[in-house]
This record gives sequence, structure tokens and C-alpha cells, in this order.
Amino acid sequence: MKIVCSQVDLKNNLSLVSRSVPSRPTHPILSNVLLVADKAKNCVTLTGFDLSLGIRSSFSAEVEESGMITLPSKFLNDIISRLPDGEVSLSYDEEDLEDNPLVAIDSLSGKFQLRGVSGDEFPELPTIEKKESFLLPISALIEGLKGTLFSASTDETKQVLTGVHLTRHLNILEFAATDGHRLAVVKTTEESSDEDTETGVSDEQNFSLTIPSRALRELEKMLSSGKENEAVALYVDNGQLVFELGNQHLTSRKLEGGYPNYNQLIPTKFERKMIVDRKRVIEGLERVSVFADQKNNLVKFKLDPDNNQVILSVEAKELGNAKESFSVEIYGDGAFEIGFNIKYLMEGLKALSANEITFHFNGATQPVILTPLSGLQMTYLIMPVQIRD
Amino acid sequence: MKIVCSQVDLKNNLSLVSRSVPSRPTHPILSNVLLVADKAKNCVTLTGFDLSLGIRSSFSAEVEESGMITLPSKFLNDIISRLPDGEVSLSYDEEDLEDNPLVAIDSLSGKFQLRGVSGDEFPELPTIEKKESFLLPISALIEGLKGTLFSASTDETKQVLTGVHLTRHLNILEFAATDGHRLAVVKTTEESSDEDTETGVSDEQNFSLTIPSRALRELEKMLSSGKENEAVALYVDNGQLVFELGNQHLTSRKLEGGYPNYNQLIPTKFERKMIVDRKRVIEGLERVSVFADQKNNLVKFKLDPDNNQVILSVEAKELGNAKESFSVEIYGDGAFEIGFNIKYLMEGLKALSANEITFHFNGATQPVILTPLSGLQMTYLIMPVQIRD
Repeated sequence: MKIVCSQVDLKNNLSLVSRSVPSRPTHPILSNVLLVADKAKNCVTLTGFDLSLGIRSSFSAEVEESGMITLPSKFLNDIISRLPDGEVSLSYDEEDLEDNPLVAIDSLSGKFQLRGVSGDEFPELPTIEKKESFLLPISALIEGLKGTLFSASTDETKQVLTGVHLTRHLNILEFAATDGHRLAVVKTTEESSDEDTETGVSDEQNFSLTIPSRALRELEKMLSSGKENEAVALYVDNGQLVFELGNQHLTSRKLEGGYPNYNQLIPTKFERKMIVDRKRVIEGLERVSVFADQKNNLVKFKLDPDNNQVILSVEAKELGNAKESFSVEIYGDGAFEIGFNIKYLMEGLKALSANEITFHFNGATQPVILTPLSGLQMTYLIMPVQIRD
Repeated sequence: MKIVCSQVDLKNNLSLVSRSVPSRPTHPILSNVLLVADKAKNCVTLTGFDLSLGIRSSFSAEVEESGMITLPSKFLNDIISRLPDGEVSLSYDEEDLEDNPLVAIDSLSGKFQLRGVSGDEFPELPTIEKKESFLLPISALIEGLKGTLFSASTDETKQVLTGVHLTRHLNILEFAATDGHRLAVVKTTEESSDEDTETGVSDEQNFSLTIPSRALRELEKMLSSGKENEAVALYVDNGQLVFELGNQHLTSRKLEGGYPNYNQLIPTKFERKMIVDRKRVIEGLERVSVFADQKNNLVKFKLDPDNNQVILSVEAKELGNAKESFSVEIYGDGAFEIGFNIKYLMEGLKALSANEITFHFNGATQPVILTPLSGLQMTYLIMPVQIRD
């Protein structure tokens, strides 16, 4: 094999696929990256795979001789990222392939030799029958993932909750994630373009599936390199799914099991509501959170409708306490006190990217709903925490 | 006690003295900061002390009622740093002082109460008889510490080597630090100002002492707030020393025990020398260091005087190897090979702030001296590492 390529191309594609290389591999070969050089296409393809998540990426290169080899991801990244801008060549002698050849990595400054392992030992990415793809606009994916991913469970015993549930019904793409303490739902509407029919998306384009958070976090990073008006192709087959964006390709297993019917958890009638300046309440929470770790992360909200004021407070009995009050709009009568987990509340408020937010309340032990006053179609449900004095 | 001060003043002085608050205190009170408010002087003084290193800092404030209290450093820092710009008030009722009062911390946004402990329980900083001070120019201290501190030993069993040895002889201020593998010496010359006598510094101003690195690292940070043409006053007494810069005050124990006579370790005659571009050799070392951890951090230098070239190489047998060559000026005949600990070499090269560096060699097992071609008066001695093939 012999290839000559640009250091920047190699570095960027390598750092992308390396994100699927496990830090503690179950089999040594998985800590390597697969490199395939195709002379006919003048193209190099890199693959990382942890047996669940796989990332593959291709780029143009001058391929003087085809080949297939795996190289240790960590060292290859370390070497390539330290090389100066310009051309890099990678080569080994095909005759040495059986004996784990030293691959020569040459640049303007610095010559390296790095031990490779034959590509035959690298596991195949799961194949998927690419009959039909769902096209998902990048802007909708970015918005939906930003608004929901943080709410997914990290508890591996609740498998299906460790992912984000994605549903398309006609031109509405809906994202949902919950860990049992809070639920985030984002709806994005796809505008019909000129070429589409009136409804934009047809019935056959409807789907519903749950995707592991880990894969979606990598997809989020991949999207940052795409253009806003592009679309990602999603292929789904048996237990697997593939996202494709240009020459980048992310494969993951699906999460099996029925996702909770979360829409029925969201109340539609409320006794009182409060409209707040999102930045102001985040700043206040950041200050009072100084003491929050000391007592179950509990922050108390005391609504004072007579003065249109809310008082945030955190108690850490032995140590001290923190209090902060500011103006809000309150609808509904009588004083009202409710407790929140400050971490869950902050994460929700940070994701609700609008200037003003509405808190919808019923009783002090019933779910609270946060929605932006305008813009993004997001619903954040948070369970209150009981206040014990 | 009641004080009103600016949030910025309180934050900056607090973060300075907190650096001497131990993270694992031997006595609970040491995790607190002592705050003394003096109504007569309208001044607030903060102190942190770990029984070895103490930092004290004063600033102007409106003191409505004098007082002395200690507050938990971590929480006080967390609170003050989150407050908005503007005025902050701290107060407690002197009647409550015996029962660990809640100190009220009020600002434009946010009201806190933080439990204090009476200042009587806080240990006194060691007193020092301030008969005569040595005046040390800030610029000389900055230069000397930058060039030597990194070479001090971290091995607590070699007490005297964990510090920097500071000597003044007339107008030369000399810094030295060694851990047995390398030695860094910086000489700074004090220019005589108009008011001084011809020699600038008199015999009585000569001294020689070893100062703990920890104290000097904090001094370095303190210096960054001073002006280059200012001087730091150093008081030395029994086992203690004090640095004073404006309202900032750093106290530390001295390191006892004779410091090695390092000047006799530095060879004066050499068989060969090599002049290198400092940036070029650092870049090369950074690249080949990819494999250095694999084999005792050993980097080989191969001098080729016929081609005025040096070849840097690192071997990691099973994994691969790295090689880099570039032009240098070599004086002395015959090829020559020598090994270095790459970490020690890099640290020295980074501290030698000149464009060109001279390596002075004798045999492959004898100390190597690095000096800048011009500028800073620094000598870096590094012991070679034996190359085993």
C-alpha cells in the first residue's frame, strides 16, 4: 500500500472515526482504526468500531497502491496531529502484511514507523439493506438533539431510556428523552420544499425508533461539519441503523423495547403559571446552587402573586443558606411553594433556548411543565422534589 | 462587624490568600480564611495559612464596625465569585460571636448566610523581626523563578532540594534548583540606580537561603499583579521569611540544611558543541515524544558534523519508532551519540527563552550544558541517559 494525502484531511477524518474506538476494547484489534486505500477511486476510507457504534469516513487521496491495514488509533492520532501542514505519505510492503508490518509515515518533518495489523482481523460493520432512506434535515436534528439528549437516562438497567425516541409523522419530527425524573420533548416541523408534494413528507416516510444516546452524541458532532440546509439519510433495518452525511457514515444498533407513551404524562390543565426571564432565573440558580450539593440539590421556589415575585432559596443547615428574589409574572391566586432538583431544572432551562419561559404548575407534588414563550416547540416536564422541613 | 466593599476587591484578595488554604487541613479551622475589619483604618485584611505557608492581603473597605471572624474558604470563594459587580456587605452581630454566627453576605442580587467561626481559634502567622529587608526587583524575580523553579525536586525526602537556592552577592542575584538529574542556574544583574552607590548593592545586602518551591510558586503568581519596576521586600529571621509587595504579604518557613555547591558540578571545558534553533528542536522533540513514554522517555541525539545535522530518534520496539533530522551548527569532530530524558530536556529548552541555544558536550555519559546564545544568563545542566541497545 502507498498513499499520499493532506495532513488536514487525514487528521480530521481520523479524529472523527476515532470517537467510536473503545478506550477499553474487549478485543485488542478494536483499539485500531481500519484504513482501506482504493487505487481505482483514489480514495481512503477509515473505520472505527466498538461492536455497537461504528463510524466510517472517506476522503480523496493519491493512492499509488491499494491496501488494507489497521493501526493503533491512539498512536496514529498522536502522530498525525503533530505533523506539520502539507503532504503525508503512508506505506508498507504487501509482502510483509502477514507479519504485522511497520507502516512508514513520512512528512516534511519527521519520519515514523508504526506497527500495523492486517485488516482481515477487523470486524465487519453490520450490513444494512439500503432499500429506502429517511431524509432528516440537519437543522431539525441539531435542534431536536440539543433539546432532548441531556434528559436521557444514564442507568444501563433501563436500556430503552438510555436513548432518544425519534418519531416522524408526516412533516413533524419529534424527539423525546426521559430518565424518569424529567422528560424533554421537541417537535420540529419540516417545511415543504418546491419539489415535494403539498404535505412535504408522505406516509411511507413515517417511522418511530429509539436510538442510543452515545450514537446521537457522535451524530451531533458529525452534524457540526455539515451545512444547515443539507439532510442526513437514515437507513433502518432489523436491529441496526445507519446515518449518512456526505462521506461520513455512522452505524449503531437500535434500542429494542417499547418506549413509554410519554404524551399521556404531560398534563394539559394547570392551576397556576409563572413567566420568567430565562437568563435571570439561570443566574439566580447558579448563585444559590453554592449550597445545593449539601442537601440533595434541593432548591425551593416560593411564588408571591401579590408582589409578582419569586423567591429562590437553598438551605444547608449547619453551613448557611442562600436566597434570591426577582420579579416574574404570576397567574393564579395564593402563595405557593415547590421544590426542584436544581441540576435537572438548570439543564432544562439551558436547553429551552428562548428569552422567556413559562412554568406551568398544579400541586406541589405534581409534574411541572416548562415551555418557551415563543420559538422552539419544546416541552420540559420535571417532577418536583418534596420539601421536608 | 459590618463592612461594605467592592465585589472585585474582595474576590481578588480572597482568591490570592485562598491559595495558602490547605485542601486537606490538619485542623478544621485551617480550611477557613481569617477576615479582620479595622474601622480606624477602613481596611479589611484576609489571611490563609497552612502552618507552613501563609498569605495575607489587605484592601480598603467601608468598615462600619470592626470585627474578626473566619469563614470557610471554599464556600466564601464560591459565593463571592458568583456575585455581580458592585457593592457587597458582610456583617454579623458581635453578641453571636461565641456561637459561630451566621455571617450575612448581601449584594444587589442574592443574599447569603454563611456560618463563621471566631477568629481567636485561627493560628497566628509566625512573627518576624523586621529589622532590615532585602529589596529584590520584580523583573529579576520573575526571570529567575521562571528559569529554575521547574528543576526543583519533588521528592520530600530530599528536603533542601525541594526549594530554590537564592544568593545575592553585591549586585548579582543568583537562582539555582536541582533534583539530581538536572540543574538550572539563572543569574540576574541589578542595575545601579541613581540613588545607589556605585556598586548598587552593599555587602550587608548579601544573603544566601533556600526557599520552598510551593511558596515561590505563589510568589510568582503574586508578582504578576505587581509592576515590573517595583521591588519585593524580603525579611529573613530564624527559620522564617516574609515577602512583601504592596499590601500583599507571603510568609514561609526556610528550608534548612546545606545546599549543594552546584557551581563545582558545571564543567568549564568541552569537547564539542552544537548550536540549534530552539523552536525547531522543541517541535522535533514534541513529535518524536509520541513514543517516548514507551521506553523510559529516552530520546537519542546523533550528531553528524560532516553534514552539520542532528538526528533525533525514539525507539519503541514492538510499536514502532520516530525519527527527525534538521540542520545545526556542530563544532568538534567525529559522529557522536547521546541519550536524554525527553521530559527533562524539553523543560529546560522551554525555560531557556532565547532563539538559539548552545549544547556543550564532553563524553556520552558526562553532564551536558545548555546555554542561550544571547540574552538571559542561564545555565542548564542535564545528565545524559545511557543508551542500551
